[in-house]
Amino acid sequence: MALSYDSLNENVKKCQYAVRGELYLRASELQKEGKKIIFTNVGNPHALGQKPLTFPRQVVALCQAPFLLDDPNVGMLFPADAIARAKHYLSLTSGGLGAYSDSRGLPGVRKEVAEFIERRDGYPSDPELIFLTDGASKGVMQILNCVIRGDGDGILVPVPQYPLYSATISLLGGSLVPYYLDESENWGLDVDNLRQSVAQARSQGITVKAMVIINPGNPTGQCLSEANLREILKFCYNEKLVLLGDEVYQQNIYQDERPFISSKKVLMDMGSPFSKEVQLVSFHTVSKGYWGECGQRGGYFEMTNIPPRVVEEIYKVASIALSPNVSAQIFMGLMVSPPKPGDISYDQFARESKGILESLRRRARIMTDGFNSCKNVVCNFTEGAMYSFPQIRLPPGAIQAAKQAGKVPDVFYCLKLLEATGISTVPGSGFGQKEGVFHLRTTILPAEEEMPEIMDSFKKFNDEFMTQYDNNFGYSRM
Amino acid sequence: MALSYDSLNENVKKCQYAVRGELYLRASELQKEGKKIIFTNVGNPHALGQKPLTFPRQVVALCQAPFLLDDPNVGMLFPADAIARAKHYLSLTSGGLGAYSDSRGLPGVRKEVAEFIERRDGYPSDPELIFLTDGASKGVMQILNCVIRGDGDGILVPVPQYPLYSATISLLGGSLVPYYLDESENWGLDVDNLRQSVAQARSQGITVKAMVIINPGNPTGQCLSEANLREILKFCYNEKLVLLGDEVYQQNIYQDERPFISSKKVLMDMGSPFSKEVQLVSFHTVSKGYWGECGQRGGYFEMTNIPPRVVEEIYKVASIALSPNVSAQIFMGLMVSPPKPGDISYDQFARESKGILESLRRRARIMTDGFNSCKNVVCNFTEGAMYSFPQIRLPPGAIQAAKQAGKVPDVFYCLKLLEATGISTVPGSGFGQKEGVFHLRTTILPAEEEMPEIMDSFKKFNDEFMTQYDNNFGYSRM
Repeated sequence: MALSYDSLNENVKKCQYAVRGELYLRASELQKEGKKIIFTNVGNPHALGQKPLTFPRQVVALCQAPFLLDDPNVGMLFPADAIARAKHYLSLTSGGLGAYSDSRGLPGVRKEVAEFIERRDGYPSDPELIFLTDGASKGVMQILNCVIRGDGDGILVPVPQYPLYSATISLLGGSLVPYYLDESENWGLDVDNLRQSVAQARSQGITVKAMVIINPGNPTGQCLSEANLREILKFCYNEKLVLLGDEVYQQNIYQDERPFISSKKVLMDMGSPFSKEVQLVSFHTVSKGYWGECGQRGGYFEMTNIPPRVVEEIYKVASIALSPNVSAQIFMGLMVSPPKPGDISYDQFARESKGILESLRRRARIMTDGFNSCKNVVCNFTEGAMYSFPQIRLPPGAIQAAKQAGKVPDVFYCLKLLEATGISTVPGSGFGQKEGVFHLRTTILPAEEEMPEIMDSFKKFNDEFMTQYDNNFGYSRM
Repeated sequence: MALSYDSLNENVKKCQYAVRGELYLRASELQKEGKKIIFTNVGNPHALGQKPLTFPRQVVALCQAPFLLDDPNVGMLFPADAIARAKHYLSLTSGGLGAYSDSRGLPGVRKEVAEFIERRDGYPSDPELIFLTDGASKGVMQILNCVIRGDGDGILVPVPQYPLYSATISLLGGSLVPYYLDESENWGLDVDNLRQSVAQARSQGITVKAMVIINPGNPTGQCLSEANLREILKFCYNEKLVLLGDEVYQQNIYQDERPFISSKKVLMDMGSPFSKEVQLVSFHTVSKGYWGECGQRGGYFEMTNIPPRVVEEIYKVASIALSPNVSAQIFMGLMVSPPKPGDISYDQFARESKGILESLRRRARIMTDGFNSCKNVVCNFTEGAMYSFPQIRLPPGAIQAAKQAGKVPDVFYCLKLLEATGISTVPGSGFGQKEGVFHLRTTILPAEEEMPEIMDSFKKFNDEFMTQYDNNFGYSRM
């Protein structure tokens, strides 16, 4: 048989993507059997009840149904600024949402993205170096595909990491070079640690070509400081690495000490020679922030200091799949140029987005506190992004029981949690963690009013689990 | 520099995608300079003025703006059946269009696709073996990624072919094994020719693993007969090849002698052992047909006789990019279950779709006749799909001039055509052709009323070109 398991591309078999792995598949089965599942395996806000922002949906609905713009009754269902914006975006297309755009995305939307970046960072941005993508993941895959030539090429990836990176590197046949984030330092990034990782990879004959940072962190939730970003960029300069800045959670910040600062801004602030030489590709999306428009599949990447000939090659490869979907390109345009004060829809838009962000901030707190109220659980505060990544201290009895069940201990724990409570998480082993230490990742996205009950249900399960597998647990709690 | 042209993945550099290649780039430049360009380089109907079908756009607009469903005025802008369908599709999602779906697509839409296939072929279809994709191209790339392990793995591809195949095979580091379609037999497929191609590849140590057919043909426009499909399937059975059936133009048929018949139906008709053993993956899309919803990026593939463990691996890889965009999944649902007689929107839908198909049929005729009215041009009739692929007989003077300009002769011709007329085509060399024979591909999509003028403009250019480069041309015409 041509397409048998044995004859499959080995890189396909090797790659692992735990976010939709064993736990997700079991949760889907249980859901089919009628059990109520709380899907916190993936940052998918609308699936957990978050309502879409009204204004962008009005605009895209009108773009999908342009004939409504000629209907005298259109004003009964749509505000005038949504109508105007729909006309604006349609004018940027060459045939509406049904026509392929340029493979880099609509020039007019890329211009709006560049203007957004300029406002955000205070430095110029060139639309020709911005490509729109079907979600940020597709952009990351495109760039890694250009970088990786084979298993002699290494990519520095944080551990714990979002498994898009490990899976894509496996799929492309490259080598993942891990650098460890320090849990005891609130998942901080230590540049000495980076140096060791690179030295070790080189001693194994690997050419380290790129470094990934996820800021704010996924699954770890930390926000990188400006000083830390400078160190990283200097490191990339010295080591001649292209920095891939996964900044998809830049709107999701839940503390005031370290606001989001983009890698691009820090790089430009550093001035010559860094600002002229360090290669940077940064990624953004409509899936996260207070938008959460995951199902639309919209994203972009911006390239800095990438030579024109390489940009052309990236364009060529993008063109094989013709174009990113056009309605998500319009969502991207709207995300980077939302209603302004004075616009008809401004108040509603501001109220909706503020409501979502403030609730996420409260949920981050409820969840961290809930985890930390369990004596065998330690959890850093979610400074940003959408995840909580508690460490679960498992007793030898549980590790033994997992072994007997043929499971990794944290997978064993998460499966039991799922069966008992319907909470669908991802075991820490799917993201990478230090030997003998166990975590799980959950999103902070369940509805705020359901959060206390979910945390109670978690605590009840955890205590029972511990009582079952740790002879000393019940006693020492008193 | 980490990301320099020299250090790029060689497979990226090697791949070529002429549909958005030199001609397209030059056309885009000319457009920027203010020249009127007729983009016939890619099958992109809405870009050339085709209007979207009203009913599906109404349904998707409502799905994008679900709050309209609670508005008492919704009935003033939307018919009741569109409202009902929007509610139906929203009920199939888990959080509307903003939530990621399962990575294979929404189960409810996959069920509708399976029902469509059952009605079309008269054989059962299993939704679990249907994956929705961001356009058919992405599906083809996913499958080839699983099949190709390295340059020792060969894929049989028709020549001329749609360059998605050659580009993807290059990108994945595989080997393209060409088989030639016979222009003098209306681009027929000769199985003896296939056998020779496979034998030759094997003598070079290549393991031939898969065969691609494009039916109706792109760029060649031919429709495969049932007898021909049986031969192909038998050949795949004997040679243990997985057949990739690119059937994206199945609704685009412009003659009555050979209606579209799916590879799946022919395979099932053949019975055991073929129907139980031949591996088949067939592809479809919302981009073509009379829909032409290219910019939405929606497609599916159906797998037949692919082992469950392989299906799981394909699912795993699909999950890395989380999910295809959800609004295009709904377009796919609508395409496979359009309004029925008796529905409020049926008459309009039927009128619109019939209008498009009948006009395409007339345009196919106008274009073929137009090309054949030039004495140095020979063109098979476009039986199906959306393209005309005339052979242009270039005189030695033109070939010499092209050489001096450093261009392939058909590229030279197409560039001159573009500069003179604004007609943006793709040179035959982008699809593959026999040595010393030259073609171009154009779509049959320009508006019907503009077609005579476009063909006149082509003829005028061609005659002038020939007069310039062929000393005998003017005389022999008299």
